[in-house]
Amino acid sequence: MTGEARDPAEAMVTRGAERRDWRTWPVYEASALGLRNYWYPVTWSSRVGDRPVQAQLLGERIVLCRDDGRVYALRDRCPHRGVPLHLGRKRFPGTLTCPYHGWTYRLDTGVLCAAITDGPSSPIAGKVSVRAYPVAERLGLVWVFVGDGQTNPPPVEDDIPQELVTRRVVVEGRIQSGRGGNWRYAAENGFDEGHAKFLHRDALWARFRRLPVWTDTRIVRSADGRWISRRWVGVHWEADFPGLGRWPPAHRWWRLAKNPARPDRQPKVDPRIAALDLPGMVSVRLPYILRVAYASYIHYEWAVPEDADHHRYVQLLVSFRPEALPRLWFRLQYLAYIRWVFHGQFTGQDAWMVDVMEIPPERLYRPDVSVIEWRRLVEEQHRPTGL
Amino acid sequence: MTGEARDPAEAMVTRGAERRDWRTWPVYEASALGLRNYWYPVTWSSRVGDRPVQAQLLGERIVLCRDDGRVYALRDRCPHRGVPLHLGRKRFPGTLTCPYHGWTYRLDTGVLCAAITDGPSSPIAGKVSVRAYPVAERLGLVWVFVGDGQTNPPPVEDDIPQELVTRRVVVEGRIQSGRGGNWRYAAENGFDEGHAKFLHRDALWARFRRLPVWTDTRIVRSADGRWISRRWVGVHWEADFPGLGRWPPAHRWWRLAKNPARPDRQPKVDPRIAALDLPGMVSVRLPYILRVAYASYIHYEWAVPEDADHHRYVQLLVSFRPEALPRLWFRLQYLAYIRWVFHGQFTGQDAWMVDVMEIPPERLYRPDVSVIEWRRLVEEQHRPTGL
Amino acid sequence: MTGEARDPAEAMVTRGAERRDWRTWPVYEASALGLRNYWYPVTWSSRVGDRPVQAQLLGERIVLCRDDGRVYALRDRCPHRGVPLHLGRKRFPGTLTCPYHGWTYRLDTGVLCAAITDGPSSPIAGKVSVRAYPVAERLGLVWVFVGDGQTNPPPVEDDIPQELVTRRVVVEGRIQSGRGGNWRYAAENGFDEGHAKFLHRDALWARFRRLPVWTDTRIVRSADGRWISRRWVGVHWEADFPGLGRWPPAHRWWRLAKNPARPDRQPKVDPRIAALDLPGMVSVRLPYILRVAYASYIHYEWAVPEDADHHRYVQLLVSFRPEALPRLWFRLQYLAYIRWVFHGQFTGQDAWMVDVMEIPPERLYRPDVSVIEWRRLVEEQHRPTGL
Repeated sequence: MTGEARDPAEAMVTRGAERRDWRTWPVYEASALGLRNYWYPVTWSSRVGDRPVQAQLLGERIVLCRDDGRVYALRDRCPHRGVPLHLGRKRFPGTLTCPYHGWTYRLDTGVLCAAITDGPSSPIAGKVSVRAYPVAERLGLVWVFVGDGQTNPPPVEDDIPQELVTRRVVVEGRIQSGRGGNWRYAAENGFDEGHAKFLHRDALWARFRRLPVWTDTRIVRSADGRWISRRWVGVHWEADFPGLGRWPPAHRWWRLAKNPARPDRQPKVDPRIAALDLPGMVSVRLPYILRVAYASYIHYEWAVPEDADHHRYVQLLVSFRPEALPRLWFRLQYLAYIRWVFHGQFTGQDAWMVDVMEIPPERLYRPDVSVIEWRRLVEEQHRPTGL
Repeated sequence: MTGEARDPAEAMVTRGAERRDWRTWPVYEASALGLRNYWYPVTWSSRVGDRPVQAQLLGERIVLCRDDGRVYALRDRCPHRGVPLHLGRKRFPGTLTCPYHGWTYRLDTGVLCAAITDGPSSPIAGKVSVRAYPVAERLGLVWVFVGDGQTNPPPVEDDIPQELVTRRVVVEGRIQSGRGGNWRYAAENGFDEGHAKFLHRDALWARFRRLPVWTDTRIVRSADGRWISRRWVGVHWEADFPGLGRWPPAHRWWRLAKNPARPDRQPKVDPRIAALDLPGMVSVRLPYILRVAYASYIHYEWAVPEDADHHRYVQLLVSFRPEALPRLWFRLQYLAYIRWVFHGQFTGQDAWMVDVMEIPPERLYRPDVSVIEWRRLVEEQHRPTGL
Repeated sequence: MTGEARDPAEAMVTRGAERRDWRTWPVYEASALGLRNYWYPVTWSSRVGDRPVQAQLLGERIVLCRDDGRVYALRDRCPHRGVPLHLGRKRFPGTLTCPYHGWTYRLDTGVLCAAITDGPSSPIAGKVSVRAYPVAERLGLVWVFVGDGQTNPPPVEDDIPQELVTRRVVVEGRIQSGRGGNWRYAAENGFDEGHAKFLHRDALWARFRRLPVWTDTRIVRSADGRWISRRWVGVHWEADFPGLGRWPPAHRWWRLAKNPARPDRQPKVDPRIAALDLPGMVSVRLPYILRVAYASYIHYEWAVPEDADHHRYVQLLVSFRPEALPRLWFRLQYLAYIRWVFHGQFTGQDAWMVDVMEIPPERLYRPDVSVIEWRRLVEEQHRPTGL
């Protein structure tokens, strides 16, 4: 099959339109496989036991395994013949053994400590190693530091929102691997100002909230400089579009919205959340941690890069009332509907868009200030790598 | 994996054989994605309503939508974030709105008339557009003009066989998208002189017709110069192949052929079809319209390019007797068996070949004069593009 | 999607480790699609009859067909329009006819002897041919010689282990096409010294054998110089690995091993097998024939290259006692359990590894002397090609 037509449609789209190119953000543009030298949440602690578990992070395949209470992570490839180590087993304490020839690696260092089929005095022992990744457990999650091989990892607490480290919290959530779309699509969707008011208008989660049609938005920086937040300086609940008509369409009787989102009808905020003094309801920081503060809990999410076209989507819902009864009530609420309505259907609409969108090319508009500031944040704050 | 063996079989095949290269027909060779600046039938009018419908034409994704009785076609990609517009809905009359951020396009022009989530005075309104494709409805079908962006479309009637525009007709047919194989394979198969007598010999549709073993064929041009037709100047109903034997094998008792195709036993031709004075039973014209005239109806087909490896196959069966009773009888015949036996099993054998064939390289033989004249017609008559 | 991270893990793996590159074996490295100018077993004789059968060998698609008791092989592509000939049929004795236009090829020479739809005097007859492959039948198998188009095939007996040609044997076996992994992976796995003792330790087939932990192994050459064999010069049945512990773990009561593999407890060897005076239990020769001699039968296997990522796996189990009763007993044993336990689960573990392994890069160790000597054998003995 030969020959291919140039697409004349492309040319029309961009004609006469101001255009900001991805080359404006070179670090971001080059980070299809993610930002290195960060800690990423990978899976629930309870999912990692004696049997090796595989995962893909930033284009690298890793194997997780627990030994004597601690979790370890190694690169998931035996250097001998390229067999994935997650197919192997723990044959001796503190080690993982490849199923093919019995090459046995120390879980803590990745060093080959024995090649079973070459006997106890095998000259290769100690001379080969697989990469060992720093691992930590916090908040019931396993965190892995994916570095450039030349950088010492900072404390894992540096890469976890501070309030989750310093307060007593209750954590619920969902983790999905293999979600379609590059991690940057998911990140931009998460902090995107514009879509929530439109895409999610019919979501069950939005049935009980009133969504503005459009807003004037400023992006503000947190006191510690690591977060940026969206702040509404003008909110428009309905509008007449010339030649088109009114938006949103008139309320129907079955629409249950009681307008709780109106400034004058704010729900009662948990004082411990209020005390966090967050710079805005929706904030984001590197390597992509989204924080959406509701009145009685905070939603956090990560889009952990797997390969150029897939990411692992980690959603947490956190309550700051760890006492027995509120804790029970929070868990009940989560399991009864938040898990399905918010962490299911609502963010499932996002997953749908993240999966079908294809950029660049793109054509930004005013509300994309949030996307642009996020890209700028990456350019400014990404940890340098020696790569 | 490294290294690849050169295939010594290829060399043997071509040794000592005259060889005509696809470079002989450069326009044709370059048209893997189809010929531009033509009207193509896409789907049944009845299939396009308020809900957007997607299709792929000449490598471009389009969305079809009906508004106030008319059908419109836009490029199926929102320039903002690359989301397919067919996932959106008609939120306001005369427009289509992207599901992600509410970018709203005029169906007639493709111009962005509102970005809902940026308010009524969004500065981007009017500054962006998606390509709008000329659309027409004829014969119960939706036709789309796929141009080069620089050429004004001719009247759709220019790209429809004249007799379908000027006579009262009854139309039945089938449309299949995603058929395997490049559109040129389907086109060449359609006008190919040689295969019908062999491939289709066992088809149910051929049970009632007698097929020649081989023919002397001339390709003739229609009076208006746009069609070429095959004309038999010598017909051979059986033959002895030296060293092999007689072909076709002796008739079996269950073979029902009553030899209606013999010149001396022609079936009675509908006088309105005879009056069309067609240059031959099988004719073809650009962008690939095949016409096969039977005694009481005419078969038309299009192979509309989708991508380099797939095409949309449009088959029509047309009667020229629009009066109530003949019309009813025609429809009954079509539904009772023609749809299954001709537009199903018979052309399904073609689909099978079109799917498995792989050219170039190819090695043509005498009956391929039909294929060669078709390629020559494309070189000569294709509408120029500014691409 | 742009940008890609260099993998820092790769660098760590090779640091300070002696490294032998595949460039050490240039012929082997270049033979992803197999070694040419050899006879390969393709399928059971009983599977090839009047209906054409397709197969892929060394990247070439072929069609097999039986005529008048003999099997023929042609390249599976009609040069006319690229249609696979295996979709055709034998329309005349000694020929195969393409289903599309009736091009008819002599099965013995591949020469086009008629183009049915161009009549008996078609000028193209005799001017086109498809490649015809030399075919032989031995041991109930169809063998095809895949040459470079310039080399006369040696007798098929040259490429069959001599004892299978000169003795009366009983043959059972399995043939699987489309097995994952390059043929060299399967070959190296077959002759690999190290993995059997570890990977197969839990196989049912090994339940009744005791496997050493490691061995000192020498690779020896057969008297005729064509085979290399592994020979154990030191066998270690258990070992203490410093810092790890004893291997293998202590026997459990349900472990049935009666240590038959110990030198002092050898099972009684069939005198006809002993008389073969094989240079070792496990031997290999080109183009990859593995021979594993058990006491009462010998296992042979081929990994016939299909494409760069798949091979056809041919396993034979051969008894040298052709008399009626031992023959029946052998067949019963094979069908009752050897087929499932050895040619099923046991070699299925190999198939698993061959499918998941990915080399180069690789990192060899002492027992890989077998792999290295196999590669060296290929460099030394491969038949030259004119390609």
